[in-house]
Amino acid sequence: MTTIALDAMGGDHGVATTVSAACQLLKETSSKDSKVKLILVGQQDVIADALRKVNVNVGKYLSIQHASEVVEMGESPALALRGKKDSSMRVAINLVKEGVADACVSAGNTGALMATSRYVLKTLPGIDRPAICSTLPTIDPDTHTHMLDLGANVDTSAEHLFQFAVMGSVLVAAVDDIAAPTVGLLNIGEEEMKGNEQVKQAAKLLENSHLNYYGFVEGDDIYKGKVNVVVCDGFAGNVALKSSEGVAKMISHYLKKSFNKNLLTRIAGVCASSVLKQFRDRMDPRRYNGASLLGLRGIVVKSHGGADAFAFKHAIKEAIIEVEKNVPQQLEKEVEDVLVGQRAG
Amino acid sequence: MTTIALDAMGGDHGVATTVSAACQLLKETSSKDSKVKLILVGQQDVIADALRKVNVNVGKYLSIQHASEVVEMGESPALALRGKKDSSMRVAINLVKEGVADACVSAGNTGALMATSRYVLKTLPGIDRPAICSTLPTIDPDTHTHMLDLGANVDTSAEHLFQFAVMGSVLVAAVDDIAAPTVGLLNIGEEEMKGNEQVKQAAKLLENSHLNYYGFVEGDDIYKGKVNVVVCDGFAGNVALKSSEGVAKMISHYLKKSFNKNLLTRIAGVCASSVLKQFRDRMDPRRYNGASLLGLRGIVVKSHGGADAFAFKHAIKEAIIEVEKNVPQQLEKEVEDVLVGQRAG
Repeated sequence: MTTIALDAMGGDHGVATTVSAACQLLKETSSKDSKVKLILVGQQDVIADALRKVNVNVGKYLSIQHASEVVEMGESPALALRGKKDSSMRVAINLVKEGVADACVSAGNTGALMATSRYVLKTLPGIDRPAICSTLPTIDPDTHTHMLDLGANVDTSAEHLFQFAVMGSVLVAAVDDIAAPTVGLLNIGEEEMKGNEQVKQAAKLLENSHLNYYGFVEGDDIYKGKVNVVVCDGFAGNVALKSSEGVAKMISHYLKKSFNKNLLTRIAGVCASSVLKQFRDRMDPRRYNGASLLGLRGIVVKSHGGADAFAFKHAIKEAIIEVEKNVPQQLEKEVEDVLVGQRAG
Repeated sequence: MTTIALDAMGGDHGVATTVSAACQLLKETSSKDSKVKLILVGQQDVIADALRKVNVNVGKYLSIQHASEVVEMGESPALALRGKKDSSMRVAINLVKEGVADACVSAGNTGALMATSRYVLKTLPGIDRPAICSTLPTIDPDTHTHMLDLGANVDTSAEHLFQFAVMGSVLVAAVDDIAAPTVGLLNIGEEEMKGNEQVKQAAKLLENSHLNYYGFVEGDDIYKGKVNVVVCDGFAGNVALKSSEGVAKMISHYLKKSFNKNLLTRIAGVCASSVLKQFRDRMDPRRYNGASLLGLRGIVVKSHGGADAFAFKHAIKEAIIEVEKNVPQQLEKEVEDVLVGQRAG
């Protein structure tokens, strides 16, 4: 049985989203062999109320763990860490630390989640800083790209970028069953002379490593599926991710607008509706919700703050896969082998 | 009369694109009051041959300036600068320096164009480094965003970011006739505590300046049109730009694929074809081709290397607008006022 602790209070919509997602997921997994147990962590009465609204009772596969406080979305991570020891986020992470849960999922304040996870769970030996890793779609519907760091670290050394590469590589090997995932280093040109100092030095570390290093990749290569893992510092990664979201939203806005212009275009829209629906489903960013906080001694998955129940459910699924594939154990083993080997060599 | 020197040999397609774009543009402007003269710079025989193919003769508004060498797309900027003193790119920039041309446009090697422009034209007083600035579409069809730097500078100080903000602000004021353009600083969160050191310090400089500083913006805000100018270092800017291109291409690929699936979807595509065409026109990135190398004592516009004639023509138009609006003169005046004021204050 896989047990996942959910920060029920986190995210822009709190229990309305998390409780609904939990119930949907349990319905889907109830008929399967590999059972999942969910622990809703947060204010007992608020959660119980939300469960009543959807006519679901706690039971063998669903329980509530009370936590009196809530970390606000805009709150300082340091203050949340020091001041809110009974927050739903903190208690959910504690459950992982104590071995009660195999993973935790939160849609809450990213900085607070990272700071608290790092404080409670600690990083793996050989890893200085955890990184945020997520999957992104590519032009080939059968593949996707993993990218890290997406915003946890803003001033990153070459050594840190190398560690991210090792972690991303292990995650993809485990989750996607790829023997030697290709790793690309995000740069602003494919030529060797381009890029900043950290990136140039990281390239040297990667060339001399056991990883399947592809070389430099550029922003547009992320979506070409050129490599399995794209490595970058958290500033560039976050900018790439958010810019991509922005463009996708703009395009979808104009597409909708084009079909809503007048009666004729609306008729064309009706004719094309099933095609457009399929297209929207394929591009649905909610299916990619759930970023891993990699490099910790435990599984923590971050959901988009604005996620709805469908998206939050996907984040829970990401956590379940990582538990089933023993990601932290694999990570610990590989990171030790590669990084200790690297340092000795 | 506005005179533009075109690096006829630059870009992935060389004269095939540049000569065709030049001819198209002259056809469009021939009936207008404000006449434009184009100088095609490059290998005389190659250009003459390309002109023969499109049945166009040189004349009052079109001339050829011979230059024997060509800077290759993958060539080292330093080698191009030192070794190819008679390249089409170098000679085109020389024409601006000598006052023969009011601006130059090149689709060639970005690094070489920046290095050569900087060496030949020099930067404006008060500007340490030129930056690459381009317009990007937004969710509001009547507005666009200017963003800089898009890849000229990878290790940028707070002071440099501030200079970019001043330059972007002046460009937008001149070109878009906006009295006090809003300026946003690209960051990975809107909270004050987020971001790297340079960004935090640049924010302080901007808060204390005469610029219409909005605050931090994130990657997705670029396409919301939240501010007129988005300022960032060249690494983040280039990553944002290329990632955006990648997503847009992926979406357009899937849209096409969805309508090409089978007979029924193709029929739906025919019904929706005029709507889809309008949508594609609106999203056409070629209309945004033409990035300014800002901060130089002269106008240099960089076209996308892979630009076709339609896109290259847009880059020429960008150069013409900057000439008509006296951008370098405005820039020189404002940069001196603001930056000298800033330094004195």
